[in-house]
Amino acid sequence: MTALTGHSLIAGERVAGTAGTTHAVSPATGERLDPPYTLLDVDQVAAATTAAAEASGPFSTLEPAAHAAFLDGVADRIDALGEALVERAALETGLPAARITGERARTTGQLRLFASVVRQGDHRGVRIDPAAPDRRPLPRVDIRQRKVPLGPVAVFGASNFPLAFSTAGGDTASALAAGCPVVFKAHNAHPGTSELVASAIAEAIAAHGLHPGVFSLVYGPGAAVGQALVADPAIQAVGFTGSRAGGLAIVRTAQARPTPIPVYAEMSSVNPVFVLPGALDGDVDALATAYVASVTGSSGQLCTQPGVVFVPRGDAGDRFLATTTRLVDEAAGQVMLTPGIARSWREGVETRSSRAAVLARGSEGPGGNAPAPVVHAVSSSDFLADDALRDEIFGAASLVVRYDGADELTTAAERIEGQLTATIQLAERDHALAAALLPVLERKAGRILANGWPTGVEVGHAMVHGGPFPATSDSRTTSVGTLAIERFLRPVAYQNLPDALLPAALRDANPWNLTRRVDGVLQPGGA
Amino acid sequence: MTALTGHSLIAGERVAGTAGTTHAVSPATGERLDPPYTLLDVDQVAAATTAAAEASGPFSTLEPAAHAAFLDGVADRIDALGEALVERAALETGLPAARITGERARTTGQLRLFASVVRQGDHRGVRIDPAAPDRRPLPRVDIRQRKVPLGPVAVFGASNFPLAFSTAGGDTASALAAGCPVVFKAHNAHPGTSELVASAIAEAIAAHGLHPGVFSLVYGPGAAVGQALVADPAIQAVGFTGSRAGGLAIVRTAQARPTPIPVYAEMSSVNPVFVLPGALDGDVDALATAYVASVTGSSGQLCTQPGVVFVPRGDAGDRFLATTTRLVDEAAGQVMLTPGIARSWREGVETRSSRAAVLARGSEGPGGNAPAPVVHAVSSSDFLADDALRDEIFGAASLVVRYDGADELTTAAERIEGQLTATIQLAERDHALAAALLPVLERKAGRILANGWPTGVEVGHAMVHGGPFPATSDSRTTSVGTLAIERFLRPVAYQNLPDALLPAALRDANPWNLTRRVDGVLQPGGA
Repeated sequence: MTALTGHSLIAGERVAGTAGTTHAVSPATGERLDPPYTLLDVDQVAAATTAAAEASGPFSTLEPAAHAAFLDGVADRIDALGEALVERAALETGLPAARITGERARTTGQLRLFASVVRQGDHRGVRIDPAAPDRRPLPRVDIRQRKVPLGPVAVFGASNFPLAFSTAGGDTASALAAGCPVVFKAHNAHPGTSELVASAIAEAIAAHGLHPGVFSLVYGPGAAVGQALVADPAIQAVGFTGSRAGGLAIVRTAQARPTPIPVYAEMSSVNPVFVLPGALDGDVDALATAYVASVTGSSGQLCTQPGVVFVPRGDAGDRFLATTTRLVDEAAGQVMLTPGIARSWREGVETRSSRAAVLARGSEGPGGNAPAPVVHAVSSSDFLADDALRDEIFGAASLVVRYDGADELTTAAERIEGQLTATIQLAERDHALAAALLPVLERKAGRILANGWPTGVEVGHAMVHGGPFPATSDSRTTSVGTLAIERFLRPVAYQNLPDALLPAALRDANPWNLTRRVDGVLQPGGA
Repeated sequence: MTALTGHSLIAGERVAGTAGTTHAVSPATGERLDPPYTLLDVDQVAAATTAAAEASGPFSTLEPAAHAAFLDGVADRIDALGEALVERAALETGLPAARITGERARTTGQLRLFASVVRQGDHRGVRIDPAAPDRRPLPRVDIRQRKVPLGPVAVFGASNFPLAFSTAGGDTASALAAGCPVVFKAHNAHPGTSELVASAIAEAIAAHGLHPGVFSLVYGPGAAVGQALVADPAIQAVGFTGSRAGGLAIVRTAQARPTPIPVYAEMSSVNPVFVLPGALDGDVDALATAYVASVTGSSGQLCTQPGVVFVPRGDAGDRFLATTTRLVDEAAGQVMLTPGIARSWREGVETRSSRAAVLARGSEGPGGNAPAPVVHAVSSSDFLADDALRDEIFGAASLVVRYDGADELTTAAERIEGQLTATIQLAERDHALAAALLPVLERKAGRILANGWPTGVEVGHAMVHGGPFPATSDSRTTSVGTLAIERFLRPVAYQNLPDALLPAALRDANPWNLTRRVDGVLQPGGA
């Protein structure tokens, strides 16, 4: 196993921080985990951003094969960390080893998928409008467009996915795939996991002969180092997954820079589920079982956890609630990621309990950090009347909203904020109501599901993990799936350049066999 | 000719404003032009945004053929306005009729080009990851992605392109092509031109049976109505072309909303031109002639006017300056768009004259509103030492910077702010120097030209009229060319939806014959 050093890893070098130390803590036992981690002073961050800026040019011009091989190399080295990585991540997060193993597969699978995109190259967005010297009244000059990387990206790790939304997670993988160096700010809840993964990235950088500034891992106290990173003139974009307050603070800093930069912050979502009447014609127990599993899995600490479920009034809905109640009552709390997250969860549940009836409550899990899952229930009129009931509670809590008829449901849907997901449970007899809901949900959410549950985010070409504000700070993209790569690119047009001076992607000979849009018509590459 | 009413045109109805009136003024003669235009009070703007919100749903789901026919219909009706439009625009702007005629062709050509994109449909970004029920360890569900319109867009007209960057200009055309209704805030320098074009759009809306809220034209006093529009909750994005101060004020308002929205503001650019030594081996007089034409055309009031030109020291460079001096000295001022713009130009030139030597100055044109073109000259060390020399002067002024050697040139390039364009004049012997400059210019500009002049922006698929801040507020896109349509779209994923509930773009039968990315592989449509 790679030995943990407890230091930042800046452009391939271990750097001891001068702003104190932190310890990881086992959320299950409260035990402090070695080694202590030294924290950078804000002045020390510039070493990472300067190295990233130096690496940016050569990294942006890598040939597709070498670029893709590097991403594959990162994935291989993360796999090679073996059980040591799974054990450390489980220790630091309290998440079960099976969950971590699955998350590792998602993380390395994502890197390899992105490598395939880099190899293929459609994300480079090549467009060529050839010269038309005989055009009247004016001849047309040759114009070619491609997308170039934005430059160094600051990425903030999330606590709840120590691999898939952390050091080599979606934001890092998509920035690296775009050709942008990454300065990664570790989440202090899993510093050892971060160091292991960062070591794997640094090894891949060295093995593939890249500039070491392509990746740095920094540890910092509180928000100061993160804010310094976002304000650093070398940084050209930010990826963030976390709280709304944290995301908005980063957005403000990015907008206040002399040269503002884009921020992709994934912040908060209650992921409404609309159970239409016909969905209760079938196996209501199975539906409730799946609901409770989606609410309580990973202790509810998932961005797409179903926090609000609309259930029709009537006998079938009552049966759904009865099974839900029984299952939640039987459920034991699972260890949460940090004592702070558990505390916020308890506060949220307490506030909600003063505004809505508790439908069901499980039992506390082992240790002091595994609160009992809770489901509340309210009428849709109460739900509409009380803004606070639409707030996210991060963890195993959910709110059942009972409704009467289509109008109540569409009215409620209209009032919901921007979301990562919206789900419809339906049977064929519900199609008219679903068709009325869909245009509303399309305006509110990045992903719309039918007859499933929103937890479990597939990494593919078609996934959207994003959505209108406040789910994210930028609805025009996704933080999961291959479209995420395009967040870190911008178009540049080249007019009348000699072929020898054009970037390879645009040369007449098409040396990278890219798909090109020529005069508006796609000419598939990959020959 | 369509009679001018002097009122806003909100969802097909003439609406008299209650906040006073304004008059267009002939910049050539100072004459007030009839009719007077009534100005909306901020409270009256909601009628336009409410109608746009109502129109948004049905407009977003138009079939491609009907959608494209509408855009073609707008173009046809603008053409049908005939000479009346050219005359009114020339009268209100002082621009020559030939320039207006060319601009009209660009405007209607752009609408027809965008209609072809709508018909073809690649901008919908369809991606399908089919279900894989046998995948281990977990089966994969069917996920499909398409892009949907953001919703109503506020567009601000620019003074310098009364057609191509105004009522039915690039921002309006791309928003309408994306499926977004538009509320257009007229520039008060050409209200009659705006009303004529708006009437053509409203006629096309009626003729094609669309919701009248798809387009509204509003006149307002000062910035209040514009700011109210940007703050209006129904508005989902903003397109703006104008000054840096105006653009940044809009960005601030958009960011301060409870739900922030994207702003595409095209603001300022000095469009540096790098004359490399070899470019002076050839016909220096022709090069200088083209330079002066690009500086003075349209009275220099073009976003891409070459405001800074780097010329090597030495005999050949001296000859370039000599011809430039002769041509500028001979040039007469052309009427500027408004007295205010002429005043700002004079102030800018006065400031520059206190910091740099005047190389050449032409003569004043007719009237009080056609100042003499000016070219200043400085050394590259003075240029680097004085930030104010890098400010844009909007109009017929340019700054020649004399440099010695490659290092001085790349140093200067590094110090330039974000630009719409950067141009290299070169011969084959300059390739090494150009290759060293290009990576710098790629970071600074949206469009890079060789051996041409940046004025004259081709409308096509490959054009980028955009660039890093402060050239624009969002470098990730363009405001000219078909890629501009994508500014007003966001992705939505559909997971496991019954085929009958999927939008047409995503159905198995592919009724619109769209290109689709299936499991990452492009399957061209258009069968």
